[in-house]
Amino acid sequence: MSTVLGANNYGKAEVRLVRLVRGDTHELVDLNVSVALAGDLAQTHLTGDNANVLPTDSQKNTVYAFARRYGVTPVEEFGLRLARHFVQSLAPIALSRVELSAYPWRRLGPHSFARTGEGVRTAAVTCDGAKAYVVAGVSDLVLLNSTGSAFAGFPRDEYTTLAETGDRILATAVEAAWRYRDDEGPWDAWYDAARAALLDAFRRPSDSLQQTLYAMGGAVIEAVPAVAEIRLSLPNRHHFLVDLAPFGLENPGEVFFAADRPYGLIEGTVRRDGAEVAPLAWSLPR
Amino acid sequence: MSTVLGANNYGKAEVRLVRLVRGDTHELVDLNVSVALAGDLAQTHLTGDNANVLPTDSQKNTVYAFARRYGVTPVEEFGLRLARHFVQSLAPIALSRVELSAYPWRRLGPHSFARTGEGVRTAAVTCDGAKAYVVAGVSDLVLLNSTGSAFAGFPRDEYTTLAETGDRILATAVEAAWRYRDDEGPWDAWYDAARAALLDAFRRPSDSLQQTLYAMGGAVIEAVPAVAEIRLSLPNRHHFLVDLAPFGLENPGEVFFAADRPYGLIEGTVRRDGAEVAPLAWSLPR
Amino acid sequence: MSTVLGANNYGKAEVRLVRLVRGDTHELVDLNVSVALAGDLAQTHLTGDNANVLPTDSQKNTVYAFARRYGVTPVEEFGLRLARHFVQSLAPIALSRVELSAYPWRRLGPHSFARTGEGVRTAAVTCDGAKAYVVAGVSDLVLLNSTGSAFAGFPRDEYTTLAETGDRILATAVEAAWRYRDDEGPWDAWYDAARAALLDAFRRPSDSLQQTLYAMGGAVIEAVPAVAEIRLSLPNRHHFLVDLAPFGLENPGEVFFAADRPYGLIEGTVRRDGAEVAPLAWSLPR
Amino acid sequence: MSTVLGANNYGKAEVRLVRLVRGDTHELVDLNVSVALAGDLAQTHLTGDNANVLPTDSQKNTVYAFARRYGVTPVEEFGLRLARHFVQSLAPIALSRVELSAYPWRRLGPHSFARTGEGVRTAAVTCDGAKAYVVAGVSDLVLLNSTGSAFAGFPRDEYTTLAETGDRILATAVEAAWRYRDDEGPWDAWYDAARAALLDAFRRPSDSLQQTLYAMGGAVIEAVPAVAEIRLSLPNRHHFLVDLAPFGLENPGEVFFAADRPYGLIEGTVRRDGAEVAPLAWSLPR
Repeated sequence: MSTVLGANNYGKAEVRLVRLVRGDTHELVDLNVSVALAGDLAQTHLTGDNANVLPTDSQKNTVYAFARRYGVTPVEEFGLRLARHFVQSLAPIALSRVELSAYPWRRLGPHSFARTGEGVRTAAVTCDGAKAYVVAGVSDLVLLNSTGSAFAGFPRDEYTTLAETGDRILATAVEAAWRYRDDEGPWDAWYDAARAALLDAFRRPSDSLQQTLYAMGGAVIEAVPAVAEIRLSLPNRHHFLVDLAPFGLENPGEVFFAADRPYGLIEGTVRRDGAEVAPLAWSLPR
Repeated sequence: MSTVLGANNYGKAEVRLVRLVRGDTHELVDLNVSVALAGDLAQTHLTGDNANVLPTDSQKNTVYAFARRYGVTPVEEFGLRLARHFVQSLAPIALSRVELSAYPWRRLGPHSFARTGEGVRTAAVTCDGAKAYVVAGVSDLVLLNSTGSAFAGFPRDEYTTLAETGDRILATAVEAAWRYRDDEGPWDAWYDAARAALLDAFRRPSDSLQQTLYAMGGAVIEAVPAVAEIRLSLPNRHHFLVDLAPFGLENPGEVFFAADRPYGLIEGTVRRDGAEVAPLAWSLPR
Repeated sequence: MSTVLGANNYGKAEVRLVRLVRGDTHELVDLNVSVALAGDLAQTHLTGDNANVLPTDSQKNTVYAFARRYGVTPVEEFGLRLARHFVQSLAPIALSRVELSAYPWRRLGPHSFARTGEGVRTAAVTCDGAKAYVVAGVSDLVLLNSTGSAFAGFPRDEYTTLAETGDRILATAVEAAWRYRDDEGPWDAWYDAARAALLDAFRRPSDSLQQTLYAMGGAVIEAVPAVAEIRLSLPNRHHFLVDLAPFGLENPGEVFFAADRPYGLIEGTVRRDGAEVAPLAWSLPR
Repeated sequence: MSTVLGANNYGKAEVRLVRLVRGDTHELVDLNVSVALAGDLAQTHLTGDNANVLPTDSQKNTVYAFARRYGVTPVEEFGLRLARHFVQSLAPIALSRVELSAYPWRRLGPHSFARTGEGVRTAAVTCDGAKAYVVAGVSDLVLLNSTGSAFAGFPRDEYTTLAETGDRILATAVEAAWRYRDDEGPWDAWYDAARAALLDAFRRPSDSLQQTLYAMGGAVIEAVPAVAEIRLSLPNRHHFLVDLAPFGLENPGEVFFAADRPYGLIEGTVRRDGAEVAPLAWSLPR
């Protein structure tokens, strides 16, 4: 056979878990947890020998059992506990990755809640036995500035028809993930500070979505000394001014068509000066 | 030909519209608007003669032009204006229906906003020339009680294995729509009162999701005298207690699996005593 | 209390079921089944007394048990069996409705299959004890004519800017449901004939999507004598010719932008001459 | 400022494009095209100076103009032309990546088509000026073996409750992408051969989804000499045998619950022996 097995991993994805802490007032945490493992897994690929393959069903059970035994907050802590467990308890497993999404709920009463949607808190922990990498983030955080954004001074090739603008709507759905230098810390406080920094920086005047991206990344790095680097993916959700002239109407920046597709997409990394890179923190090898 | 044309309608669906009101502080309204018209439309079906078919593109243009000219708030008012316009300005059109969804945003600054997700405000206006019916509502409002909900005393047939429970998680995604008796009013105040009543009633102890549905509907009717009836559609988003006994762990109502499918679905109408029915308010004839 | 309970129903939605018939060659049927029941359900709403409320969990179990005992094909037959069972075996239940979607798979081998996506076969059975209504249909059937479609001769109001066209792309995602006069028959043959008639009629030259709708409906009624009426919902998936003139290029009907939103929406019923109406066939009362 | 800009890119995503070739019989190609560019883009991030930022709107225009001028098939060729254009015509741009999805349609007539859904053909071209990397693939290809799949011989830890099985349903939604060693070739023939090899290998008896993954990857490498490596991502779409014993029924592998979440996820790379790695082929640097 002229083929060889390259990088590979397996696990259980999207374990949906709601954890209550009961008391006079209940606490509610609503999670989606995914586990992926890598290591000495060649035999199952080559011969179907599963001696090294802990079932993904067992991984799911572990998530639920650990949720009961240790609680699930802060989510980074829960992820660390799970990621370390798999590497430490399974000899063939050299690398583990646990990704978590925490859906936000607002309290309505002692044991009543409403799901809110201002973004989802995320975390990802990768463990290689020696070291654990912790990434936190936010996704689906939809933001809009209704003025203060320009886009001008760009080059024009033969396919360019876009007009320069000094005042446009800037809207995006933030997907951000930042890597911590440490594997312990005041996770919730760091998350809150990072998220606040993102919102704050987004509001600044902008000459391009790239400038906004860099400002947002820099703000997180300034706000949270434990952050080594941050990756942002910012779709540019275009809002087009509707031409109302055919109907005898001016449209001085008031009525917009919110387009679905296509959209711009701006992606970038902002790094603390001198911070090392850490590819393992971002994904298992492919 | 042995076939005849039955009820029919046509229109433009999902016109995405963002309306700004500029000033020191900007106001932002984010809408999805759909228009449907019915009337003397047989010829286009039978022969392709479009003499009575105002293009759906023109309907879209009307939505944008009216947004500029008259503003879009309250959404019921915007819907009324559009629905009446189509019936009054187009001789062949006997019925119009305008459906609107308003996505909520939270203010971050004078002209900065974050999209929140605690449900979407909806409205639907149907106009038959003589009368306009106004329905308001909320969709995608996800609520959860972590205790205080039971389900017991049900009949058991040969396919019943479910255990009775005195304490379960009750979770749903509210889709509610209530019909007003009037075609003018303090729409925003009514909406706020109805929504608050829904949240408040949801929190009450419950012996079935049907009981909760009826309580929610009744609360809206009590809170807003202008409401004639309300329709609710409540999926029962099951949360199953995870069996941790195989791992030597009790699970006293703490760790749950949030299931996707299947789900229960409870639908019902609650009516003010003596209120007439009004099928046209709810949909164009099919 | 000044409120009264109106129409209501409850049931289990989206029971996902794969049924194999084993043999040298396996048969595979992949279904999504929803059950809804109505009847004497006031007490659970008013007082939380569930004596008449067969759990939706039991309904789910019934679906699976019947699938084992009786098989699931034709789907109309499976729906009839379930719908009749609930009305006949549960005294408080006066009305039942079973909706089914059958996802298509293509055979790759004796027991290997690939999911195909040229529409989903649907069925809905409503039973009131005395009578059972059977509706069959197809959804998500995406069709496109690249020429032979016009849209002209329409009225122009002050908001009309659309140009007339003698040659456009006509594309839609067919949602069609047709009601049979009978409650037994060669369901699969009827379905195949109705579906073929839809495809065939769609291909005819068209002066409006309404004309195409009526042709499709009429074709089904002509092709299948057992069909009393058919409802079609046809989104007009706009394909806009891209203006390439700024780049010195003509675009003679070759390069199109496929838009997502907004879209036209054309809905209509076509009825066999003399056919009675049957509202119950289409939905439980609201 | 203590922060530095790391890897970044920007572009226009999800340009929806339908391309007709007119004649007695029309040809139809339905594409979703995304462009991403990287290079000397620091200034727009740091200062908002856009002198190097060709608008994403111009990128979209280029896609449409090239579609008219050169046609869009084979999609790999279209991707190569676009990717090279951006690197060669824009001095600041060092890297370009063009991703394409081609939705399949079945011919119904000379100019009539039905959208089918047996997977989507994909391609991705990355160009660094000197070299162009071509990756082809398929996504959303849903396959199922109803027998011939086992999962046994796995290790059992304290969280393992899963029973071994010698006969289960194996179902997945294939996402596969294979890298060619060359930047020209009979793209369509290679694609057809690779896709056929995937389907064929999937049907083999399986002791784990990993074994199936490796067989599928190896089959592509054997079938298409131009393929250097292939990456597969295979969700394990669990089908659970329903326990019908409470209803007095056996269930000898006939009635299954098709679960949504959680699901297993198996990812792996299969490489031709001796093939170099080529990270750029798979994504722009992050």
